[in-house]
Amino acid sequence: MASVGIGLIGTGYMGKCHALAYNAVGPTFGDVPELRLEILADRTDEIASQRSAEFRFARHSTDWRDVVADPKVDVVAITTPNALHREMALAAIDAGKHVYCEKPMGLSLQDAIDMAEAARRAGVKTLIGYNYLHNPAVLHAKALIDDGAIGRIVGFRGFFDEDYLADPDLPYSWRCRVDEAGTGALGDMACHLVSIAHFLVGPIAAVMGDIHTEHDHRVGTDGSAQSGGAVETEDLAHALLRFRSGVRGTLASSRIAWGRKNHLAWEIHGSTGMITFDQEQMNELMLFRNDGDPARHGFTRILSAPVHRPFGQITSGSGHSIGFNDLKIVEVVHLLRGLTGQQDLHPDFEDGLAIERVIHGIARSSVDQRWVEV
Amino acid sequence: MASVGIGLIGTGYMGKCHALAYNAVGPTFGDVPELRLEILADRTDEIASQRSAEFRFARHSTDWRDVVADPKVDVVAITTPNALHREMALAAIDAGKHVYCEKPMGLSLQDAIDMAEAARRAGVKTLIGYNYLHNPAVLHAKALIDDGAIGRIVGFRGFFDEDYLADPDLPYSWRCRVDEAGTGALGDMACHLVSIAHFLVGPIAAVMGDIHTEHDHRVGTDGSAQSGGAVETEDLAHALLRFRSGVRGTLASSRIAWGRKNHLAWEIHGSTGMITFDQEQMNELMLFRNDGDPARHGFTRILSAPVHRPFGQITSGSGHSIGFNDLKIVEVVHLLRGLTGQQDLHPDFEDGLAIERVIHGIARSSVDQRWVEV
Amino acid sequence: MASVGIGLIGTGYMGKCHALAYNAVGPTFGDVPELRLEILADRTDEIASQRSAEFRFARHSTDWRDVVADPKVDVVAITTPNALHREMALAAIDAGKHVYCEKPMGLSLQDAIDMAEAARRAGVKTLIGYNYLHNPAVLHAKALIDDGAIGRIVGFRGFFDEDYLADPDLPYSWRCRVDEAGTGALGDMACHLVSIAHFLVGPIAAVMGDIHTEHDHRVGTDGSAQSGGAVETEDLAHALLRFRSGVRGTLASSRIAWGRKNHLAWEIHGSTGMITFDQEQMNELMLFRNDGDPARHGFTRILSAPVHRPFGQITSGSGHSIGFNDLKIVEVVHLLRGLTGQQDLHPDFEDGLAIERVIHGIARSSVDQRWVEV
Amino acid sequence: MASVGIGLIGTGYMGKCHALAYNAVGPTFGDVPELRLEILADRTDEIASQRSAEFRFARHSTDWRDVVADPKVDVVAITTPNALHREMALAAIDAGKHVYCEKPMGLSLQDAIDMAEAARRAGVKTLIGYNYLHNPAVLHAKALIDDGAIGRIVGFRGFFDEDYLADPDLPYSWRCRVDEAGTGALGDMACHLVSIAHFLVGPIAAVMGDIHTEHDHRVGTDGSAQSGGAVETEDLAHALLRFRSGVRGTLASSRIAWGRKNHLAWEIHGSTGMITFDQEQMNELMLFRNDGDPARHGFTRILSAPVHRPFGQITSGSGHSIGFNDLKIVEVVHLLRGLTGQQDLHPDFEDGLAIERVIHGIARSSVDQRWVEV
Repeated sequence: MASVGIGLIGTGYMGKCHALAYNAVGPTFGDVPELRLEILADRTDEIASQRSAEFRFARHSTDWRDVVADPKVDVVAITTPNALHREMALAAIDAGKHVYCEKPMGLSLQDAIDMAEAARRAGVKTLIGYNYLHNPAVLHAKALIDDGAIGRIVGFRGFFDEDYLADPDLPYSWRCRVDEAGTGALGDMACHLVSIAHFLVGPIAAVMGDIHTEHDHRVGTDGSAQSGGAVETEDLAHALLRFRSGVRGTLASSRIAWGRKNHLAWEIHGSTGMITFDQEQMNELMLFRNDGDPARHGFTRILSAPVHRPFGQITSGSGHSIGFNDLKIVEVVHLLRGLTGQQDLHPDFEDGLAIERVIHGIARSSVDQRWVEV
Repeated sequence: MASVGIGLIGTGYMGKCHALAYNAVGPTFGDVPELRLEILADRTDEIASQRSAEFRFARHSTDWRDVVADPKVDVVAITTPNALHREMALAAIDAGKHVYCEKPMGLSLQDAIDMAEAARRAGVKTLIGYNYLHNPAVLHAKALIDDGAIGRIVGFRGFFDEDYLADPDLPYSWRCRVDEAGTGALGDMACHLVSIAHFLVGPIAAVMGDIHTEHDHRVGTDGSAQSGGAVETEDLAHALLRFRSGVRGTLASSRIAWGRKNHLAWEIHGSTGMITFDQEQMNELMLFRNDGDPARHGFTRILSAPVHRPFGQITSGSGHSIGFNDLKIVEVVHLLRGLTGQQDLHPDFEDGLAIERVIHGIARSSVDQRWVEV
Repeated sequence: MASVGIGLIGTGYMGKCHALAYNAVGPTFGDVPELRLEILADRTDEIASQRSAEFRFARHSTDWRDVVADPKVDVVAITTPNALHREMALAAIDAGKHVYCEKPMGLSLQDAIDMAEAARRAGVKTLIGYNYLHNPAVLHAKALIDDGAIGRIVGFRGFFDEDYLADPDLPYSWRCRVDEAGTGALGDMACHLVSIAHFLVGPIAAVMGDIHTEHDHRVGTDGSAQSGGAVETEDLAHALLRFRSGVRGTLASSRIAWGRKNHLAWEIHGSTGMITFDQEQMNELMLFRNDGDPARHGFTRILSAPVHRPFGQITSGSGHSIGFNDLKIVEVVHLLRGLTGQQDLHPDFEDGLAIERVIHGIARSSVDQRWVEV
Repeated sequence: MASVGIGLIGTGYMGKCHALAYNAVGPTFGDVPELRLEILADRTDEIASQRSAEFRFARHSTDWRDVVADPKVDVVAITTPNALHREMALAAIDAGKHVYCEKPMGLSLQDAIDMAEAARRAGVKTLIGYNYLHNPAVLHAKALIDDGAIGRIVGFRGFFDEDYLADPDLPYSWRCRVDEAGTGALGDMACHLVSIAHFLVGPIAAVMGDIHTEHDHRVGTDGSAQSGGAVETEDLAHALLRFRSGVRGTLASSRIAWGRKNHLAWEIHGSTGMITFDQEQMNELMLFRNDGDPARHGFTRILSAPVHRPFGQITSGSGHSIGFNDLKIVEVVHLLRGLTGQQDLHPDFEDGLAIERVIHGIARSSVDQRWVEV
């Protein structure tokens, strides 16, 4: 593949984030495989046509199947609501396209199983949009761990808290429905934590979960109870974790945590040190090492800098912060290099399936009130 | 009781902390019931005599039973290792003394049950030294919650991490033995979290725990494996919590968390706001409220000040920090007021028993791998 | 002007930052005037040709005069070393082009005077690249001040510290020479502080400065003293400030401040509150207000969010950080709107001249050791 | 001197702080020279008698001269308003007593000169209550500097901000009068900064100041303008500093800085690192060192611990914070050791005079608008 033809389905929040990255990756990285912005699809012609112009795509459609069928498209990027991922991904795979899909894979574990199997059989390449993994600070954490900077891992704590549904008076929406959103704080948020845990600590082997919907009824958009409904997706997800390596951990996620905006935070406890991170300060990694003069011990706040690759491609100034959108640029570089055979893609659908097994294991465990192996 | 005669057993870490508070409470608070430092006991005459002079006690002994038997002693303060609490407390109660005992109550749940029952029958007053509860910042959190500042409570997260046993090469000690230490990260540390959860959120009803000893063998003080032994007490304790009110929570404690020195931290999630705290910055409370202009929303760092009682008794300067030892002074004021009938004492042995039921419930749950009601 | 033709001179650090913004502004903001990337220039054909491809410019040249002369170019963007700004800007103005020039204006105050006068006479529009001003957090600070959130301003403190020359063993370079760099911590860094002070507080009327070169000799790149030289540009710049309004302030800048990476920090003291900011945490604004219950007072950490315009154009997630490069996108939106007559451009060359008068006033004051009115 | 007889004048804010320390020093440190609480004085018999009981003094008086004249008093502790320091200190010296005086020395530079000269002639020992110097974190900063941890010092920045007069509507008080308070943000607050600068960096040689009274009229306690008055003491003090070593620095102090409660903060810039501190987080020292792998560089937050002497005498738990009052205990240990010949006392009246020369130099410089050598 000399250049990569992109077809984008969905132009909302994450669709725009994709488009920004597609446009930025060349100027930012320079030496990356060429990409062609072939076609995008959204529901109305007005939106599709406007976005196509803004995002510099060659063509647009109101039918996502046009994207899948487009002969110039090498990879189909899926940024639609979760309930649509499965059908689109399977169609793309069926058309022999590579697939670049936002997380989570689908609504059910079976969705993920089917998607992974289809990709495997078809031999297409896949990448799931766990963009927080592509932060130079997170990559540096991985390098520190691999270098033994904190010794053997002995504990993990993960948190992902936001407050977008913290107001009990917010009306009933698609996010409240299982058939549209799939899950809430667990499947839509905590999956990021699992992706990080798998990347930095290793595979999770067993889980004990407790999920809960605190605001279990929401009024309708007119403010009345009868036009509202019962909330089917969870507000909170808590879990105990056991990794295959024997490491113990915890995980907690909430979408009703007032004041938390993007609190994707984690701690990795090691036998000789600790690393902590909070996405709300995404340019900082905290590192403690039991090394040298104890009178000088403490957590060191490491500000991201060009020494932490590929930060320097984005800006050459140490401590000159990168932003949320920049993570997607790094992810797209990875996509392009993967599709052109320069490196393996991760997390692909196999990795994503492993994440989903943990998420659905937590859900099952919560219902059955027992430990579940995943 | 016009004045309160104190008998102190143990003059180590917490014994000294007691002595500092006994000496400071009068000059600090002024209008508190008088106390008399009657007698202290420690194991050797050299230590007992030296401490008696330093701490301004009238008498000293190498036999703790002399403290219990002393007719001028109104309250027996127990600051010895955990394994000794039960015997001393029961003897004091038997002698009709009030009891001021450091946490935890004893080694086993039965110890706590017996101690609470004995106190109840004897009608003596009791206070357990959960000194972190007496922080003006914590008291202010309680006031904020009671005033509805964060609405209805919808979540709790508690952490207590230190690193005093984080080094795998630290030798085997009494802390490793069940018959001396009772428990580790759970019983000795997480009990503080439960005391705070009970104070701020309400009673815990059910727990699902996972405790673990990461460094399960330690060498002897000579560095050899054979002079060491198997570690019986847990390094880590993780738990899912359900409060009687329906609130869900998590708890995590570790004594092998490098870089954490006194990280007794908690979050209380409410329907309209959040409060967080970390004992390592014990003069700060973080408060988020969903109130007013959203463009000005954020966590407010409230520095302790005289407006947060009884901070102003300790220092009249806003933001002029109080320290760990000052918490014990506030606790001793509470003790003196309680013993002289001005207020009820909390946490007393009944409250302490409720805490122990949670702790031992977590331990049992961890063994049985199922939820345990407490 | 229906669309804006851009000609870019220089493709290094800030040139790339420009190019990223030019490519991103359409996808990010959507409804902005169209821009055309007409021509860029850099010193060698290899670089110019490569950058032209990466940055999506139509043409390239090794002669910057080709950019100035290009009939399709409406605005000349100057991102070359400071010593070249004057000549390029004057040539562009002479050719009737608008000018978008990185700070500072030139090496001397006379440069700035000449540039401002030329632009005034020619009637072209100008914008200086003080990109830190375009941070939604900074714009929010301005809105807060204008709304009276901190009352009347009563004090200003400004800091800009980095450590790029902190190592005394770093070799002699162009940054050490007055004829190439002009100035150091004062003219190259502190000018940002003045731009912020002028924006948020108002014009500075008098200054008392103290500049100093701590590492006044540097070795050559071969490590020998004889191939090195005397450093002519200042490592530190300190100043007392008096604003026209009577407000007093301080300013301090250092390029030898170990550990500071982009510590552009400031405090604005008001009669009823305070606002503070640090560019190293560029998505946070700290606000204190003397309002409501004193027991809840404290600095509130306001995380940037869509409610702080134009943050939401960049990402719709509250607390999903923006980065350094995003500031330039906001600046380019401002440029495009200004060039197409939708708003006035600031800071233009007149504003820039006012900044330079302060900077050169500080330098003069430091030599004369007396207060200087500016 | 086998034991030290203390006479205390003044029992308000700092008088109580002294009393707490006198009572705590024995139990806290154990092996310190004995002290006897002989006599205290305050203005009314009611207060003097009550405080005497609370603070455990043997006698009390309403006449401070009784303290000075008391034959059992070895050292006179002066904690009265600043305007009284001179007379009391001179009387104590005249009576052959050692003097332990709260800062500042007096109202005028001449006061300080006279007091230092009198002490010198009489051969008595003196100590000034700059208690922030006795923080284990500050002592550790000194040790780090002496050990070369940050190389050669190349810069100093000092701040002392509070908000106790930030409200423009606070009524006129003694703090507004030169004849009672002497000075404001400069003499009463910034002197602490100078004490720290002298301790950590070395003597200041020249200053350029700018002091200012923002709220220059205040109403009376009845709220009327006519019962109020013109404020004679400064709200703000800013200064440029030159140390004898050639190091440059800045100093800024405000008593109208909303949100700052005890923001005594400083930065020491070194040729290989930096140390920063903020009294509002008095158990933390931030250290940056240009050492080892750059990818791990950052500011390390060092939590005070027993390894930082004499922290461990106060509490043996690492990270178990000490408080403001504990600083005075450490100061009193120093006093007792100094009076009994075990170490030299610092800052004594000679050191204090050097501090006053800087403070009054800043004041003079501000009037004369020129650099002043001190």
